[in-house]
Amino acid sequence: MSSFDSSNHIIEIIDNLPNVSVATLEIARERQAQLTKPPGSLGKLEDIAVWVAGWQGTVKPQINNGQCLIFAGNHGVVAKGVSAFPIEVTTQMVMNFQAGGAAINQLCREAGLSLTVTPLQLDVPTGDISEGIAMTPDEVIAAMNAGADALNDNCDYLVVGEMGIGNTTAAAALMMGRFGGDARRWVGPGTGLDDEGVTHKAKIVDQAFARHGKLNGDPVSLLAHYSGRELAAIAGAVLMARMRSIPVMLDGFISSAAASALTAGDRLSVLDHCEISHLSSEPGHLLLAAALGKQPIIDLNMRLGEGSGAATATLLVRAALATHNGMATFAEAGVSKA
Amino acid sequence: MSSFDSSNHIIEIIDNLPNVSVATLEIARERQAQLTKPPGSLGKLEDIAVWVAGWQGTVKPQINNGQCLIFAGNHGVVAKGVSAFPIEVTTQMVMNFQAGGAAINQLCREAGLSLTVTPLQLDVPTGDISEGIAMTPDEVIAAMNAGADALNDNCDYLVVGEMGIGNTTAAAALMMGRFGGDARRWVGPGTGLDDEGVTHKAKIVDQAFARHGKLNGDPVSLLAHYSGRELAAIAGAVLMARMRSIPVMLDGFISSAAASALTAGDRLSVLDHCEISHLSSEPGHLLLAAALGKQPIIDLNMRLGEGSGAATATLLVRAALATHNGMATFAEAGVSKA
Repeated sequence: MSSFDSSNHIIEIIDNLPNVSVATLEIARERQAQLTKPPGSLGKLEDIAVWVAGWQGTVKPQINNGQCLIFAGNHGVVAKGVSAFPIEVTTQMVMNFQAGGAAINQLCREAGLSLTVTPLQLDVPTGDISEGIAMTPDEVIAAMNAGADALNDNCDYLVVGEMGIGNTTAAAALMMGRFGGDARRWVGPGTGLDDEGVTHKAKIVDQAFARHGKLNGDPVSLLAHYSGRELAAIAGAVLMARMRSIPVMLDGFISSAAASALTAGDRLSVLDHCEISHLSSEPGHLLLAAALGKQPIIDLNMRLGEGSGAATATLLVRAALATHNGMATFAEAGVSKA
Repeated sequence: MSSFDSSNHIIEIIDNLPNVSVATLEIARERQAQLTKPPGSLGKLEDIAVWVAGWQGTVKPQINNGQCLIFAGNHGVVAKGVSAFPIEVTTQMVMNFQAGGAAINQLCREAGLSLTVTPLQLDVPTGDISEGIAMTPDEVIAAMNAGADALNDNCDYLVVGEMGIGNTTAAAALMMGRFGGDARRWVGPGTGLDDEGVTHKAKIVDQAFARHGKLNGDPVSLLAHYSGRELAAIAGAVLMARMRSIPVMLDGFISSAAASALTAGDRLSVLDHCEISHLSSEPGHLLLAAALGKQPIIDLNMRLGEGSGAATATLLVRAALATHNGMATFAEAGVSKA
C-alpha cells in the first residue's frame, strides 16, 4: 500500500493533518501544577511531558513502542570530493548497524527503542546535485513511501536518523533551496573536513543552488532537486507520524533538514509534532532550528547522525514522563503549598 | 568511625587527595578514537565516558552501584521570610521521598540509582546567619561525617542533592563568603519568590556578609558561618567520594555551592572528580560554575534540587558509557577510516 501517490496528494495531506489535543495539553499542564515541586521547577522536562501527552492524547503518556528509524542512501555529489570518508562507508556502517556495533545500537538499548534500518538502493547513488537533479519526483515519492512504511503498526514515539556519506552536502543544499541564504552558513565540516574542504563544499552547494534556485513551493520538487533517498524517506516517515499523531524526536542537521522539506510553501505547522533533540555542532543546524522556531533540548557538541542525538534525548523524554506520571500531588503527599 | 576529626584534619586530607588515573584517561581517549564514528562526533558523551574511566581507573567504566544522596536540613534564616514555602515543607518532602512520591524517586528509578535520604535534625534549625553563625565548627564536622557515612561501601558513582526550605539563601550567603561579589548576583527566586521577595532575600544575605565577611581560608569555618547541616553533609560526602576516587555528579546551585566550600583556600582541584550536571535557572549557578571552571552538561531550566538535575544527567552518563563500552572499533567492524 502506498501512503503517498503524487506531489499534489502530499500537499493535500499536509493541508489536512490532525492537530494536537488541546484539551489533553491543558489537563497535562494542570497535572504538572499539582505535583510536589515548586511550579515550573522541572523546566523543560515539564514541557516535554506535556508535548508527548498532547500528541498521544492521554494525560499520562507512555513510550511503550518507541522506534528509531535509520535510512541510508548514497549521493552522486560525493564524486566532487565533499566528504572526509569514502562512499563505501555507507554500506559498511549499515552492516555495523545490523551487527549491533554502532553508537545508535547502544543508545537505542539505553533508551528502550527498537531499531529499524532501511538501506535505500546503496548501489545506485542519486544524481550529483551540482550537475542536475538528485532524483525524479517519482523516486522521491517512492522513498517517502519507504519512510512511511518503516513505522511499526504500534509505534507510539518516533526517532529518525540517517546514514549517507555526503549527506551534509545534500542537506545544506536542501536548506539553500528551501530558505535561501549564504552557502557558507549552511555548510560545515560534516564528518571532519578541514577549512579548505569546507570552502570547497560550499562552492559545490553554490553550484547546485545556481542550477536549481529557491524552490519553496512543494516538498517533492524540493527533495527531487536537492536531497537524497534517505532524506526523502525521513520526510515520509515524519509525515506519516503526523498523520498518526505520533510525537517525533528529530536528530541533528540532516534529519531536521529532511523534515523541514515538508514545510515548503511555508507550512511550518506540519512539524508541530516534532521536537529537535540536540543542537548539532554542524553550524547550519542552529540556523535551521531558528527557521523552524524550535529550541534543541540538549547541546552536547554531537555531530554523528544515525539518530544518535535523538536517541540520547529520548532518555530525557523518559525522565520527563517518569516524573509526570509517577510523582505524588501536593494533596496525595500532604505537602503544604507556597 | 569518624572520617573527619577537625578543621586541620580536613585541610590535611584535602592537601593529600588521590588524583585521576592519567594513564587510564589516555587509554580511554585512545579507545574513543578507534570507535566507528568520526573522531569527536559524540561530543561531550566522549568526555563524560573518559572522565568516569579516569576516576574509576578502568578503561571500560561502569555504574553498577550508583547512589543518590539527599541531605535535608532546616534553616533559622527562614524566620526572616526568605522562602516562598513554609519550613514544615522540609519534613513533609522527606516523608514524600520516603514514600516514593517526589521527582527524585522517579528519576533515580530511571537512572538506576539507589536513593539514600538523610534528614539532619530537622526539628533544630541552624542559627540565623544574618544574626550569628549557622553552626559551631563541631556541628559542621558532625554533619560532614554524616555526609561521608551515607556513602555505601560499594558506591561507584555518586549524585548529591538536598532539601531544605531556605537553603538557596544559605547557599547564596556561602558563595558571598567564599567568592565575595554582589549579593544580588548570588540570590535568585529559589522556590518561587517574586521580585520584591528576591530583593528582601538579597538584603538578608548582605546582612550575613556584613557580619561575617569573606572567609576563604578553611572549609569548616566557611560552612559554620554561612551554611546549614545539609550543605555541610554534601561537602563531607563529596570529599569522601574524592578520597575513594568515586566520580561525583553535582546537582544545581545549592549542591554546587556546598561542594565549593571545600575549595576554600583556593584549592579548586579538590573538585576535579566532580562534574556539574545542569545549569540551574537559579541565577547564581552560572556565576558559580564559572568560578569553578566547570561547564554544566545540560540546561533544562530546572531548579528543583533533590538531586533531580544530577539524576537526569546520569542518564546521559549511562549513554556515554554504553557507547564507550559497547561500540565496535573500525577494525572490528571492517569500516574504512577517513
